[in-house]
Amino acid sequence: MIYITRRERFNAAHRLFRPEYSDKKNREVFGKCSNPNWHGHNYQLFVTVKGEVDPDTGFLINLKTLSKIIRDKVISKVDHKNINLEVDFMKGRLASTENLAITIWHELEEPVNKLNASLYCVKVTESENNYVEYFGDK
Amino acid sequence: MIYITRRERFNAAHRLFRPEYSDKKNREVFGKCSNPNWHGHNYQLFVTVKGEVDPDTGFLINLKTLSKIIRDKVISKVDHKNINLEVDFMKGRLASTENLAITIWHELEEPVNKLNASLYCVKVTESENNYVEYFGDK
Amino acid sequence: MIYITRRERFNAAHRLFRPEYSDKKNREVFGKCSNPNWHGHNYQLFVTVKGEVDPDTGFLINLKTLSKIIRDKVISKVDHKNINLEVDFMKGRLASTENLAITIWHELEEPVNKLNASLYCVKVTESENNYVEYFGDK
Amino acid sequence: MIYITRRERFNAAHRLFRPEYSDKKNREVFGKCSNPNWHGHNYQLFVTVKGEVDPDTGFLINLKTLSKIIRDKVISKVDHKNINLEVDFMKGRLASTENLAITIWHELEEPVNKLNASLYCVKVTESENNYVEYFGDK
Amino acid sequence: MIYITRRERFNAAHRLFRPEYSDKKNREVFGKCSNPNWHGHNYQLFVTVKGEVDPDTGFLINLKTLSKIIRDKVISKVDHKNINLEVDFMKGRLASTENLAITIWHELEEPVNKLNASLYCVKVTESENNYVEYFGDK
Amino acid sequence: MIYITRRERFNAAHRLFRPEYSDKKNREVFGKCSNPNWHGHNYQLFVTVKGEVDPDTGFLINLKTLSKIIRDKVISKVDHKNINLEVDFMKGRLASTENLAITIWHELEEPVNKLNASLYCVKVTESENNYVEYFGDK
Repeated sequence: MIYITRRERFNAAHRLFRPEYSDKKNREVFGKCSNPNWHGHNYQLFVTVKGEVDPDTGFLINLKTLSKIIRDKVISKVDHKNINLEVDFMKGRLASTENLAITIWHELEEPVNKLNASLYCVKVTESENNYVEYFGDK
Repeated sequence: MIYITRRERFNAAHRLFRPEYSDKKNREVFGKCSNPNWHGHNYQLFVTVKGEVDPDTGFLINLKTLSKIIRDKVISKVDHKNINLEVDFMKGRLASTENLAITIWHELEEPVNKLNASLYCVKVTESENNYVEYFGDK
Repeated sequence: MIYITRRERFNAAHRLFRPEYSDKKNREVFGKCSNPNWHGHNYQLFVTVKGEVDPDTGFLINLKTLSKIIRDKVISKVDHKNINLEVDFMKGRLASTENLAITIWHELEEPVNKLNASLYCVKVTESENNYVEYFGDK
Repeated sequence: MIYITRRERFNAAHRLFRPEYSDKKNREVFGKCSNPNWHGHNYQLFVTVKGEVDPDTGFLINLKTLSKIIRDKVISKVDHKNINLEVDFMKGRLASTENLAITIWHELEEPVNKLNASLYCVKVTESENNYVEYFGDK
Repeated sequence: MIYITRRERFNAAHRLFRPEYSDKKNREVFGKCSNPNWHGHNYQLFVTVKGEVDPDTGFLINLKTLSKIIRDKVISKVDHKNINLEVDFMKGRLASTENLAITIWHELEEPVNKLNASLYCVKVTESENNYVEYFGDK
Repeated sequence: MIYITRRERFNAAHRLFRPEYSDKKNREVFGKCSNPNWHGHNYQLFVTVKGEVDPDTGFLINLKTLSKIIRDKVISKVDHKNINLEVDFMKGRLASTENLAITIWHELEEPVNKLNASLYCVKVTESENNYVEYFGDK
């Protein structure tokens, strides 16, 4: 069993808030992250896949294939977008890094697992001081 | 003459567009950076100051003082903000990294030059692949 | 189950030695790290917490709360300090990175576990080439 | 149980190809990585070891000893070398990052396990966007 | 006057040697970098351009245009290549980082200067410990 | 004219204070950096040298020679040392990053200038947020 990780990046706007809360309550719970005019980040996404090395190629998985899946299923939907308004897989969810990691996992799980591999970890880095990791419903 | 640099960081939303252009023309000129729903970045700001070392302190300038000036004049105005909508010193300007570097220079020039130092360079990093430097009107 | 990590930093002096050893023996066992006049590092501390996402906030834990705990319990005690002489939770212990990770775990375990989360990992980076991870008494 | 990681670096040339494939087929399977004239990388190697802290030293393991083992068994054989042509432990294997991680594990397992520690993970970083981790035959 | 920098990356093999020297003399002058079987690096290329901000776009230069020039004129010729054998602009030259920086400058000077800008600096990073900068024949 | 930069690193303890000041006054002027029990840093030193490329080697300067000079003249004197107590070229000076950059320049100027090159810049990084550059008495 071997683990391979691919990094992709996206730049997006977001806001943390609950629509049923007042502006004041959103500010109390979410601080400056609740700014109604949005703010944004350079997110880094690390996708780790595990499986056996294919003796024909020496690869667990062709990284171009993995990169293409991540770009098609995730990056094309979030890069230079507003996470709250434009990302189908985040509709109706709080735009937290935790929820991003979980929903990105669900976007990637099926297409990755069709390959000779299984999805192991989705890690989302929001700043140099914070990151979230999700390993599936385990 | 010695040069000292302080890094501060801010996370902000922005959009590149001209209001008099159609959406189509904005998309042609500014690409995905023109998204009307905004996107955002983790910006890094490097402020370089030059001058003589003070023999009493061994400092060119107390970095706490420099950091406080940068935070008061710049970071408090841009961090977790929308650069197009909320930043006074960017009002009426295209929200490009070039214009950010130039306007931040003008915010900092007077308060820095009151100290035993002069402002030398403002560098703004928008992503790991791009940055802008401004050295004043020279 | 989701994992979130917060990085904090501290700069400290330390020395590796056993008081009952001669200077010569300390030099043999600990090399230049035994210098009686101290040396120091920019340490990085990564604290990983695990738990369930709170559906009200989209957070596992408010990172400001986690950051405040780390600063109160650890950073305020070690930053710009001498680890051997001034850090209560390191008294009587060899000032190795391993012992730092273990004692920081014990400082953080109770206050973190009072939150909707449990402490998962304490990682201490001493240089760009070395780091230690502790996952508790497992 | 505690985990300590040491980073070492090496610069090497390699090529991904199967000798029984035509140049065209190698190009289809391995892309530009199959260039017959080679290409190369700045590899980073992270070796993680686990065990108990020695109460006499406060160390899991002396990092100089670990570093020496990694340099003797791995770095001296791969640094400024051609992985396909010159590295004994990679002879007859596809020069993929996956195979590098696995063979480096086997080079290190015995000498590390003679110490008061056991080898836990070998991580090889090929670029800022890709890395492989191997935890042994588990 | 403002300065903007774009980073691009390439992975290549090379060797430092003079064909008229014996293997022994090459080893004396160039050390392990003279290995006849090649070695390689993850190079980083930073291209800095200077000029006036265009009031219509807020840009000094469209970074997509700059990136395309760098990719067409440089990256496509060196990425996953052997610098000694395959790079037209390095033919007949020692494959040192210094010569890379100088020849890349000459590849970029004309196409960059056709834009509303002039080439200011070419920086090539060979490892985390070494880099070369060239500012033209000044 | 070309510029080449070599990075070396050192870990050291220091303290900012004036012996003729009271502890209270030192605390006012230098803050927590005046801690009488010392603190420390992982310093990075970047030495930039300029000159002409030697047509025989393709080098401005052999980086092994430059590295050896930096190690002999600087790193061996400051690494794992107390800057205030043990570093001859800092005796009688405030242990600020500014003074480190200036005194390191004077240590390196003569041996570098004996080579086919001249010293251009000494840069000292104290943390990820601060650095000092010195270009000589210009």
